[in-house]
Order: sequence, then structure tokens, then C-alpha cells
Amino acid sequence: MPHLTFILGGARSGKSAHAEKLIEQLSGPWFYIATAQAFDDEMRQRIHLHRERRGSPWQTIEAPLDLCAALDAIPDGAPVLVDCLTLWLSNQMLADADLESQCAALAEKLAHSRGPWFVVSNEVGLGIVPDNALARRFRDEAGRLNQSIAAVANRVLFMVAGLHIQVK
Amino acid sequence: MPHLTFILGGARSGKSAHAEKLIEQLSGPWFYIATAQAFDDEMRQRIHLHRERRGSPWQTIEAPLDLCAALDAIPDGAPVLVDCLTLWLSNQMLADADLESQCAALAEKLAHSRGPWFVVSNEVGLGIVPDNALARRFRDEAGRLNQSIAAVANRVLFMVAGLHIQVK
Amino acid sequence: MPHLTFILGGARSGKSAHAEKLIEQLSGPWFYIATAQAFDDEMRQRIHLHRERRGSPWQTIEAPLDLCAALDAIPDGAPVLVDCLTLWLSNQMLADADLESQCAALAEKLAHSRGPWFVVSNEVGLGIVPDNALARRFRDEAGRLNQSIAAVANRVLFMVAGLHIQVK
Repeated sequence: MPHLTFILGGARSGKSAHAEKLIEQLSGPWFYIATAQAFDDEMRQRIHLHRERRGSPWQTIEAPLDLCAALDAIPDGAPVLVDCLTLWLSNQMLADADLESQCAALAEKLAHSRGPWFVVSNEVGLGIVPDNALARRFRDEAGRLNQSIAAVANRVLFMVAGLHIQVK
Repeated sequence: MPHLTFILGGARSGKSAHAEKLIEQLSGPWFYIATAQAFDDEMRQRIHLHRERRGSPWQTIEAPLDLCAALDAIPDGAPVLVDCLTLWLSNQMLADADLESQCAALAEKLAHSRGPWFVVSNEVGLGIVPDNALARRFRDEAGRLNQSIAAVANRVLFMVAGLHIQVK
Repeated sequence: MPHLTFILGGARSGKSAHAEKLIEQLSGPWFYIATAQAFDDEMRQRIHLHRERRGSPWQTIEAPLDLCAALDAIPDGAPVLVDCLTLWLSNQMLADADLESQCAALAEKLAHSRGPWFVVSNEVGLGIVPDNALARRFRDEAGRLNQSIAAVANRVLFMVAGLHIQVK
């Protein structure tokens, strides 16, 4: 069982469902670290649907910003799903955080996963260059973060239409 | 020979040409179900180029909305190319259709393919989150539809620059 | 050693770094053909970072438009990195060039690579259809160009988060 599995894919590619399926084959309890912040109804609805899909043996922890502290609080050996890195990155940018140090600290934390940890992230760099500078910056930062996490992961899956391609 | 081959990829990734190449290795006649509606000159030009590339043994059926009925009219065992699902979905959204039931009916129909059927669709979820809500909704619906078709397909190909990665 | 390696991927997917790593395993000198034009500070910064990452055994040639002439000037057998095709295409479009003949000439040149040549390009067709016609045209032309180069390449790699999937 790899310590760190990194699950990357586009919107609605089945990343979260695949991660949940992999974790639910392990013995619980399972920890779900949600990075989502419910700013509006659309996001509240997405969070609600995600929660409904997951059953009760899941323990949910909300960590829109301090993901490292949330990971520190997890017992050794427990299965964890972090969903997802791109929302966390977006929260960091909105909070005007020092991205370089935040991302380095997270990569370091995940490089020393203390159990079967599963991390979900969005690939956002395969479309046309965005019009606005903020979106371009987000795209660059997300790509860099994804590369650094993939580098320390034992297993990397790229999701396509609910199916996975094992990249590492 | 798989009953249902699902060919997914980005714009200009060679999806249609690859599907046509696969079908033309089979004995004809071959049925081409076009979901395109020619609203403007750009689209008319695309449809025209697609038709030119295909030769005469192809029988073209236009089905911008009622794709299930078009599939029902195909003889048992005949090779079919449906091109493409994302345009069909877009037509359904413009027609304000009940997407959930339409997509479920289509997935059910394709799960019982009566011959070597080939279905082409666009992957649209690998860029930055779109600015407008309609594009976000389309992206979500397309991703869900692609997942449901991939789930019932015998073979799934992801196209990259005219080459395919077999995902299933 | 393949004569032509084509490295395709999204923004910040590690295309250039991977190409440099592959080339630096070969004996030098290595030629870097840069297609970038520094129109603004953002681009100047990107070019600067790319140069800093590469060391001194690299010889840099700038070829925003006349890529074929730059390739002709390379000695037989020398390792070359062309970075990247999508910027070159963008420069051609800005210069209002005859894209069809330019792209055909480039594909022909690369089909007769005279050494281990590595060409980097962006995949831009996996997001939502862009709002404006120019972006749609660029997306179409980039997809067509990528297909034609992939067709003549001996090896094609699709990059995901710094890792590669061998597509050909």
C-alpha cells in the first residue's frame, strides 16, 4: 500500500469518487479533510453533494487554510483523503499567503505521510491561456504545486471520465 | 471487437479521424450520426470539412436532439459513429431539456449497443474554471455524461495529438 | 535514441524541464532554440527563469518566426531543444503568416531531424470552448500542428505534473 497516492484530473473526472472507493477498501475510520469554503450557494451545494455521497464512517475535518495542522492531528496509520489541493491553493491566494513557503511546507508534510494518505487535485493547465493575470498566476501555481506533490507521491493517477491512468 | 468504443479527447486531437479509421477497417455500410447543428458559418464550415473527409460508403443521419431514436433505426450489427456527445449535450441544454433523464436514457441505450458502435466526445474539464455559470454547468454535465458512457463502454480511448491512450 | 522526441503537455506540466533532463544525458554542446518573444514583463520574467535553470553548456538561439532556418544552422547530430511550438505558432499568427505552408514546412523539416531533436509544445484543447474566435482559431491550429508533429515523431510524451506518459 503506497503511503501517498496523488489523484489528479479535470473537473467532473471522478477524482473524489475514485479516491473514496480506494479508501473504503481499507479498514476505518477514514478521515476526510475538506479544503472547501462555502462562499456561495453553488459551492454549498457541491459540498453538500460530496457529503451525502460519503457515508457515516467518515470523519470530516475542515481545513481551508491550515492543512498541515489538520494532517498533524491525524492518528498514525489512519487513511486520509485530502480534497482538494487546488481549492486549498485558491484559499491561500485569497488570503494573500506566502505561497512558496506554504506549498513547500505542504509538500514536505506529504512526503512524510504517516499512513495511506490520498490527495486529490485538479489539473487546470490544458486549456487556452486565460485572459486575466490572476487566472494565469493560479494556473502556474497549481501546476507547480501538482508537480511537487507528484514528485513525493508513491503513486500518481490521472483520471479521465471516471477511469484512471497510472502515471507513477 | 468491442460493442461500444468511447473516444474522448480535446479539440483537434484527432478523435473523429481516429474513429473513422477504426470503422473503415470493418465491412460497410457505415452509419455516421451527426449531432451538429449548423447555426453559423463557422459550424457550417466544420460540418462541411468533416463530410468531405468521409467518403461515399458512409450514410449520414442528423440527430441534434433525438439520438436514441436515431440509434434505434440502425440495423443490427452495423458499424456506427456518433459524433459527438458534447454537441448533443449542448443542443439539449439549448433546448432546455431534462438533462438527467436524457443522459440516463442515452447511457442505457449505449450500454446495449447492437454492433460495433463508436462514440466520440470532448473532454472539456482540464482548463481553468470558466468565468460564467453556464459554461461551468456545461463542464459539469459533460464530465458526468462522459463518466457514465465510459462506465458502460467496452473500450475507452483518450486522444492526444492524433494518438490514443487506451484507458479501458 | 529517437531522432525526434515530441513533448506535449499543459502549462506548468514540466515539459521543458523534462526535455532538458533528457538532453543533458547526451554529450554536448546542446542547442536551445527559443521561440519566445519578450513583449512584456511577465514574458521577460518567464524567459529569464528558463535561462537561469539551464546551465552554460547550452547555446541559445532565438527564432520567434524562422524556426526552419534556425534548425538548418544546427550541426549534424547535435542535440537540440525547440521550446516551444505553440509560442512559434502564436508568433506566426501575430505576423499574419500563411499558417498552412509554415506548419507544413516545419513538419517536413522535423520529419528529417538530423540528430536527437526534442520539440516541446502545449496542449490547449482540453478546456471549455473559448469565447472569442481568435482563441478558437489558435486552439484549432495548435491541435492540427501538434497532430502533424506527433505523426512524424519517433517518440511522443504527454506530461502530467512533471511525469510523462509515453503515447508513442
